[in-house]
Parts: sequence; C-alpha cells; structure tokens
Amino acid sequence: MRRIHVIGIGAGDPDQLTLQAVRALRSTDVFFILDKGEVKSDLTQLRRDILDAHLPEGTYRLVQARDPERDRAAGGGAYSPAVGDWRSARAGIYERLIAEELGEDDSGAFLVWGDPALYDSTIGILEEVLGRGEVAFEYDVVPGISSVSALVARHRTGLNRVARPVQITTGRRLAEGFPQDVDDVVVMLDAHQTFRQYADQDMDIYWGAYIGTPDEILASGPIAEAAPRIERLRAEARERKGWIMDTYLLRRNPDVR
Amino acid sequence: MRRIHVIGIGAGDPDQLTLQAVRALRSTDVFFILDKGEVKSDLTQLRRDILDAHLPEGTYRLVQARDPERDRAAGGGAYSPAVGDWRSARAGIYERLIAEELGEDDSGAFLVWGDPALYDSTIGILEEVLGRGEVAFEYDVVPGISSVSALVARHRTGLNRVARPVQITTGRRLAEGFPQDVDDVVVMLDAHQTFRQYADQDMDIYWGAYIGTPDEILASGPIAEAAPRIERLRAEARERKGWIMDTYLLRRNPDVR
Repeated sequence: MRRIHVIGIGAGDPDQLTLQAVRALRSTDVFFILDKGEVKSDLTQLRRDILDAHLPEGTYRLVQARDPERDRAAGGGAYSPAVGDWRSARAGIYERLIAEELGEDDSGAFLVWGDPALYDSTIGILEEVLGRGEVAFEYDVVPGISSVSALVARHRTGLNRVARPVQITTGRRLAEGFPQDVDDVVVMLDAHQTFRQYADQDMDIYWGAYIGTPDEILASGPIAEAAPRIERLRAEARERKGWIMDTYLLRRNPDVR
Repeated sequence: MRRIHVIGIGAGDPDQLTLQAVRALRSTDVFFILDKGEVKSDLTQLRRDILDAHLPEGTYRLVQARDPERDRAAGGGAYSPAVGDWRSARAGIYERLIAEELGEDDSGAFLVWGDPALYDSTIGILEEVLGRGEVAFEYDVVPGISSVSALVARHRTGLNRVARPVQITTGRRLAEGFPQDVDDVVVMLDAHQTFRQYADQDMDIYWGAYIGTPDEILASGPIAEAAPRIERLRAEARERKGWIMDTYLLRRNPDVR
C-alpha cells in the first residue's frame, strides 16, 4: 500500500521541526513540492534546506510540480467556490503525482509550512483524491509549530488571557468586523493590513513577518502607535524580498467594552 | 545574568518535542518541576522520561516543588480572582526557586505541556516575578505542539474549514452558549463534558484524551451518536487512571444556520 505523510515543518526555523517530523522525513521515499512560481522560490529553497539538513544525499527523490493558479480576482461571496475549483485542480495534480511517482510500497510526503491543521488545504485535497477512487493510499498527519505559536512565543505572550477564548481568523473576515464576544484575535492570510481599520481602538497588536527565519521582523504596541510603524516595515520588507508572510494578534482591552 | 527557558514539550508524545526544544533542554542547568500532587504524578514521570531520553545522566539538576492549591470551589464570576490569588502564590514559589536554586550564570527551565501560548500560566507568572523586582533574569519561550494540534492531526482533519475562523475556548465558556459567528470551536479545560449540552444539534465532535501517549483514546462522529460513547470512554478512563486530560473540536454544520 502506498503511504503519504503530511508533515508540518514549522513556521520557518528549521529547528522547529519535531523529532516526529524528522522521523517521518527519514521514512519517506519521494517528496512532492508544489511550486507557486518565482515569488515563493525562497520557500522552496527553505524546504530543500530542511531536507539537506536531515537526510543523506541520494536517499530520496524530490518531485516538483507547478501549483495551479488560484483565481484571486473572485472576491466576496465568490471566495469559497473559487477555492473549490482550485482545490479540484490541485487534487488532479496530487492524484497524478501519487499514481505515477510512487511505487506500490513507496511512501511520499508533502511538507507543509506551520501546522497542516491551520489554513492549509493538503488534508482536504488528499481526501478528495481518495474520494475519486482512482488511486489508493494510507496517510497520516504530523502536527507542526504554526506561525501563530511561533509569533506569540517570539513576543513572549500567550494566545489567550486567563480563562478567556481566542479566535483565529482571516484578514477577509476581520474586514467585516471584529469578532463577537472575543477580545484576542489572531489574523492570518491578510494581504490588506486590515488591522489599520482598528487603529482608533483600545487594542494592542503583536505582529511578525518571516517568523523564525533570518529575515524575521517583529513589532508590537498599542495599535494607534504601532499600525503606521508596521505598515512601513511591511512595505519595506515586501519591496526588498518580493513577497511577505505575516501574522498578527489583536488584543482588545476588555475593560473598555 | 540568570536565564530561563519556557519550553513547550508537546501534548504527550516525547517525539513531539522540536529540535529547538531539545537544544534548550541541553543548555539548561536546572529543571523546575511543579508537582500537582499524586493524581498528576504520571505527568511528572513523563517529564522525567523526556529528560532521560535527551540528556546524559548527571548533566543537570532537577528541583521539584509543590504547586499551591487552587481554589476551584470559587465558581462563576469569582473564577478570575481565584486564579489571580493562585498565580501570586505560584509567583512566590517561582521567585524563590530562581533566586535560591540558580547561580548567577545558570540557566533554568520550566517544561510546559503542549504550547506555552495556550491556557498555560508560566509566562504570566514569570512576568509577575520580574515585576516584583526581587530577582533579575532573562527568559525565552520555545513553542510546542499543543494538544489542539495533536488532536486534529490524529483525527486527520483541520482546525478551520476553508476561509473560515476557529475559536479556542474553555468548557466554562461553552456552558454559557455556543460562540457567535463561528462554527468550529475547540474546547479545553472542560471537566464537565459540556459537549452534552449540544447533543441535539447538527454538529460533529472530534474528541481525544491522553493524546500522543500510549493511553491515547480517540472518538468522533455526529454529536448525537458520539456524545454518549465519549461519556462512557471518559468515565472508564478516568476510573482506570485516576485523572484525565482531554480536548475536543465541535464542528457545526454551517448550512443549517
């Protein structure tokens, strides 16, 4: 039976791999890398560096494929269907990779930034491939350090306050309003710096980009003061590297509600 | 300068330590273990096993102290003040441990189950100790695999659904009502199986206890069917081991709202 590992490799620091992840790497014959094109080639190189650090040369194969383009122009309510189309296109690619590149008793792996549980589509896509019934395999999931965990560890703060909840959401959702009944909100996938919308409120922000890598940038403070600073840091970094991956925690002062 | 590491050691599987955590263990002179008394002595043993696995004997010291009792009888609105008193009592113990057990250039570590960012008080207590100004030290935080990540990895599902938010909350909060505007809710610290309150709704539950340890138990399914099953498994396990640590994800079908 073919076997697939979905391996969380942490937020960017190669030392954030777990021992379980290293063990899974070492039991893998073929690594599948989906390439998002030039802008993210740094990320592809980081993955290769991780393999080089833990595996003797010549003990594995690396198969690279091109990620399908995602229709990001489709806004608002159309977001989920566009994602659905993209996911199906990706399932077709995964199916072909597994069927053609893995022998009957081989094991393959997908390396996922952060934690496969958080805003990643690999598990859903593998379920779609299994549902199609064209290729059979078993798979397991190795949890990883998410950028969320890495962010707050670097800021030396918690996600939640004592006995209180925390919500993890997207920039798109945050643009529609601050979540109800929760004062600690982590925002991912925010291309539009939606935090600026809350700059006149009594909140603190804990922001980080390229967390755990040599390019890491951290900034925090009361949002009125920190927001323009983060905007500047973000623009400079994006200009310099050509892409950015960032995450932030918004912490509302509950006393003012 | 004294140095403290707050090290996330994962949810129970010793292989869930990161390489960064192993490195931090190896640079530690003194480990502080706060003992919650007999019922949790399995957890103390698990910590010792982790040290034995990664450190040569005789290269470190282990200092054990008794955790202050927490006034769990104080219910409802009194929860946070009771936690505050407990935290201050604990800060006194930490202060004494750091001042008396660490030499000026020594490093100490607190080993935290899961991720120090999630429902753990160590960072807050260290900040309180620093605020008192009696003992000076630097500290850093090593993120860990939370029981939340470990739970969903074992169930091979994600925390969020595509482009949707997820909330992490407590059993106490869930008892007050299902969170607004979110359909995926992770519940921690639930001593009262609050999920039973939602057994008549269109939801799935993904539950796990002692995740990542040899005692691990997993159960999932539509909540109406799974809730009584989980109740039984939980009672049996608690009876057998004398204590239980469990977590679950409630996933509401968004189509029915």
